[in-house]
Amino acid sequence: MATEGTAIICRAAVAWTPDTPVSLEDVQVDPPKAGEVRIKILFSGLCGTDLHILEGRTKMPFPIILGHEGAGVVESVGEGVTTVKPGDHVLPLSVPQCRECRSCLHPKGNFCRKENIISPTGLMLDGTSRFTCKGKRVFNLYGTSTFSEYTVVSEIAVARVDKAAPLDRVCIMSCQVPTGFGAVVNTAKVTSGSTCVVIGLGGIGLAIVMACKASGAARIIGVDINEDKFPWARELGVTDVLNPGQLSRPVQEEIQEMTGGGADFAFEAVGLNDTMVATLESCDPSFGVAVLVGMAPSGQKLTFDPILMLPGRNLRGGAMGEYKTRDAIPQLVSAYLQGHVRTDPLITHRFPFQDIRRAFRLQQEGGCIRCVLRLGEGQEVKDEQGGSL
Amino acid sequence: MATEGTAIICRAAVAWTPDTPVSLEDVQVDPPKAGEVRIKILFSGLCGTDLHILEGRTKMPFPIILGHEGAGVVESVGEGVTTVKPGDHVLPLSVPQCRECRSCLHPKGNFCRKENIISPTGLMLDGTSRFTCKGKRVFNLYGTSTFSEYTVVSEIAVARVDKAAPLDRVCIMSCQVPTGFGAVVNTAKVTSGSTCVVIGLGGIGLAIVMACKASGAARIIGVDINEDKFPWARELGVTDVLNPGQLSRPVQEEIQEMTGGGADFAFEAVGLNDTMVATLESCDPSFGVAVLVGMAPSGQKLTFDPILMLPGRNLRGGAMGEYKTRDAIPQLVSAYLQGHVRTDPLITHRFPFQDIRRAFRLQQEGGCIRCVLRLGEGQEVKDEQGGSL
Ligand SMILES: NC(=O)c1ccc[n+]([C@@H]2O[C@H](COP(=O)([O-])OP(=O)(O)OC[C@H]3O[C@@H](n4cnc5c(N)ncnc54)[C@H](O)[C@@H]3O)[C@@H](O)[C@H]2O)c1
Ligand SMILES: NC(=O)c1ccc[n+]([C@@H]2O[C@H](COP(=O)([O-])OP(=O)(O)OC[C@H]3O[C@@H](n4cnc5c(N)ncnc54)[C@H](O)[C@@H]3O)[C@@H](O)[C@H]2O)c1
Ligand SMILES: [Zn+2]
Ligand SMILES: [Zn+2]
Ligand SMILES: [Zn+2]
Ligand SMILES: [Zn+2]
Repeated sequence: MATEGTAIICRAAVAWTPDTPVSLEDVQVDPPKAGEVRIKILFSGLCGTDLHILEGRTKMPFPIILGHEGAGVVESVGEGVTTVKPGDHVLPLSVPQCRECRSCLHPKGNFCRKENIISPTGLMLDGTSRFTCKGKRVFNLYGTSTFSEYTVVSEIAVARVDKAAPLDRVCIMSCQVPTGFGAVVNTAKVTSGSTCVVIGLGGIGLAIVMACKASGAARIIGVDINEDKFPWARELGVTDVLNPGQLSRPVQEEIQEMTGGGADFAFEAVGLNDTMVATLESCDPSFGVAVLVGMAPSGQKLTFDPILMLPGRNLRGGAMGEYKTRDAIPQLVSAYLQGHVRTDPLITHRFPFQDIRRAFRLQQEGGCIRCVLRLGEGQEVKDEQGGSL
Repeated sequence: MATEGTAIICRAAVAWTPDTPVSLEDVQVDPPKAGEVRIKILFSGLCGTDLHILEGRTKMPFPIILGHEGAGVVESVGEGVTTVKPGDHVLPLSVPQCRECRSCLHPKGNFCRKENIISPTGLMLDGTSRFTCKGKRVFNLYGTSTFSEYTVVSEIAVARVDKAAPLDRVCIMSCQVPTGFGAVVNTAKVTSGSTCVVIGLGGIGLAIVMACKASGAARIIGVDINEDKFPWARELGVTDVLNPGQLSRPVQEEIQEMTGGGADFAFEAVGLNDTMVATLESCDPSFGVAVLVGMAPSGQKLTFDPILMLPGRNLRGGAMGEYKTRDAIPQLVSAYLQGHVRTDPLITHRFPFQDIRRAFRLQQEGGCIRCVLRLGEGQEVKDEQGGSL
C-alpha cells in the first residue's frame, strides 16, 4: 500500500452533518493510489446538488467534502496512470468513463458502472478515503470533492482539457453545462421550431434554456416560483415566463392551453415530484418528450396515472446530459474556446473560497445562476465572453 | 337529422353492468350519419382490454357493446363519406386517423385527438349513440363495438383492406397485431442482437415476442404467472421463461442478474402497476427502454423512485403500437398477404358468436392466445398459414 507521494495538508470545506453550514478546515489529502490522480483545484461551481446534500434532501455519508464542478491542475499521479500527467489542466467528473463497462461500451450509455451515484459510498473505487480531518475519515462526493484545495480522483473520472481554456470559466463544464446541454441535444433531441418548457430556472434550467435556443426552439416557456430568475431567463432565450404561485390552476393546465395541447419537449430542473409530474403533463400526450434532470429527495416516489403514457409520451432521465464524459467534455471546452458555446453568462457570481458559506446561502436564496468559488491561488481571467450561446 | 338508410335489428353482445357476463340481445343499429360508416361485422377477436372493461377494472359508460378487434364489410355510408363504399372490406379502428389534428399532422403522433380513449364518452363524434336495446341507449367502445353484427363507425376510424385478405385472420390487425408489433418497431425500436423482456405472455405479449424475434433479438425473456403460456411463448421465440410466482425474489432482480445488468428493451403487457415497475427495473439503467403497453386499472397510480430514471432509462407508452392507423394497417394486411408477417399462430381459438360468454371465460382463465368470434354469416377460410412471423 506504500505510495511514493506524501500527504498534503490544505483547506477544504467539510460538511460535518446535514443541515449545518460547511466549515473550512485543514484536511489531510493522501497521495493518489494506483489509477488515481491528485488534483490542485483552482475553481469550483456550486451546484443545486451540493445544496440538496447539505440540506439532507439527498442522502449521502457524512462527514463529506462536497463540490463536483471543479477545475484544476494535476499535482501528482498514482501508479499506472497514463492519460494525464502532473501539470495537465483537468476537470474531475462525477460520472466517469471507464471505457470497459456495459454502459461505456454501449453507444448510448454514459452512466459508467464504476461510480455509483445512486448508492454512493463516498469512497474511492478501492473502498477507502483519501481525506482525513481532526482524526476522522471524511467521505468524498461522487469521487470528486472539489471544495478542497486538493482532491484525489480516479483516472477514469478525469477529463484533460486544453491548457488555453480559462479554468474559472470552464469549471462549469464538469456539471452544469453538459447536464443542461446534453438533456437537450442527447436526451430530448430538441428540434428546430419546437416548443419547449423548462421547469426550474436555476443553473441547470438556464443551461437547458440556452441549448433549447441554440437548437432552434421557436418558443421556450420558463417556469419558476422565484421571479428574480425571469430577467436572466429572458436574456438567455425564454419567450414566456410562468410563476406557478401566481396561477389559479396547475401550471401544466396553463401550459396545455398556451401550447394548444402540450409542448414538444419539457424539462424538469427542480428536483421535486410535483414538478416532475407537471413536466410530464406539460408535454404533448401523443409525441411529447419529458426529461427529468432534477434529483428528487432520497426515497421519495414519483406517482402518476400511467394512462398519461398511453397516447405516446416519452419520459426520460439522464445524468451529465448523457455525454460520455471523458470523450465529450474536452470537446465542449474546445467548442467554448472556438466561441461556439458561450457559457459565460451562466456564471453570475464569483466568491473567494473562504466565502463558501455565503455561496451556499446565495444558492439557497436563488440569488445567482452559478456562483464560482476561487480556491488556493486560482487566478481569474479578466476578459469575459459576451452574449450567450 | 334525417338519414336515408333505415335502422337494422341484429344480434349484439350487450354488457349491461360491469362484472356480469354479456348477454346476446336484439339491438337496433341506426343508419350512419354524415361522415359515418355502417359495417357488417364478420369476425372479432376478444382482447384483454374488453375483459378489463367487463371486469370493471377499466371504467367505461354502461350499458355498452364491447369488441374493438373486428373485421367486416361496409353495409352503407353516411353523407360525405368518400374513402369507403358499400362492399369494401374494412377494419374498424379504436385509434382513428383524422389526418387533421395535431397528433395526425405530427410525424411521430398517432393518438388522434378525435377519439378520446382516455376519457371515453361511449358516443359517436356528434355526442349521440347508434345503438338502442330494450328502449335504452347503449354506448359504444372507442367508437368501434365489434361484438355486434352491425356497427357504426366514424369514417376516420375505418381502414379499408385488400379484399383478398381472409377477414377471419386479419381481424386481429385492428388491435393485437399493430399493438404488439408497433411497440417493438415504432416505440422501442428493438435492435438486432438485443435482449428483450416481455412481461405478460397473453395476446399482446406474444405479438410483441413475435416482433422482437423478427427484429433479430438474440434473447427474449418471457414472464408470466400462468405457465400454460410458456409452450406458445417458446414456439414464437421466447428463449427463457420466468414465473414470478416460483421465484424467491422480485422478477426484476432475477432479470438484472440473468442479463448481467438489465435488458436492452422491456415490455409490459399485463396492465398492473407492479409489473410496470418490474418492467422499468428489468431494463438496463443506462440505456434500457421500457414500454408500457398494458392498461392499468382506472385511477390507479404508477409509483416508483425517480432515481430509476437518472442513469438514462427511457419509459414510453403507446396505443396501437403508435401506428398511424389508416395508413399503416392496410399495409400490415398486405404484408400478411405477401407472407411477410405470419400472424395466424396468434389465433388459437375460434367460437361462434353465441359462445361469446365462453370466449370471455377462456380469456379470463388464460386458455387462449386470441379467441376469434364468428358473427352473422362470417365464413372462415380453411387453409391456415403455418409457422410464425
Ligand atoms: N441529472 C443530472 O446530471 C444533474 C446534474 C446537476 C444537477 N441536477 C439537479 O438539477 C436540479 C437543479 O439544479 P440547479 O443547480 O439548477 O439548482 P438551482 O437551485 O439553481 O435551481 C432550481 C430552481 O428551481 C426553482 N424552483 C424551486 N421550486 C420550484 C417549483 N415548485 N416550481 C418551479 N420552480 C421551482 C428554484 O427557484 C430555482 O430557480 C437539482 O435537483 C440538481 O440536483 C441534476
Ligand atoms: N396500448 C394498447 O394499445 C393496448 C392494446 C391492446 C391491449 N392493451 C392492454 O394490454 C394488456 C394485455 O392484453 P392481452 O390481450 O394480451 O391480455 P391477456 O389477458 O391475453 O394477457 C395478459 C397476460 O398477463 C399475464 N399476467 C397476469 N398477471 C401477471 C403478473 N403479475 N405477472 C406476469 N404476467 C401476468 C396473464 O397470465 C396473461 O397471460 C391489457 O392490459 C390490455 O388492456 C393495450
Ligand atoms: Zn451538479
Ligand atoms: Zn464505464
Ligand atoms: Zn385491444
Ligand atoms: Zn387526428
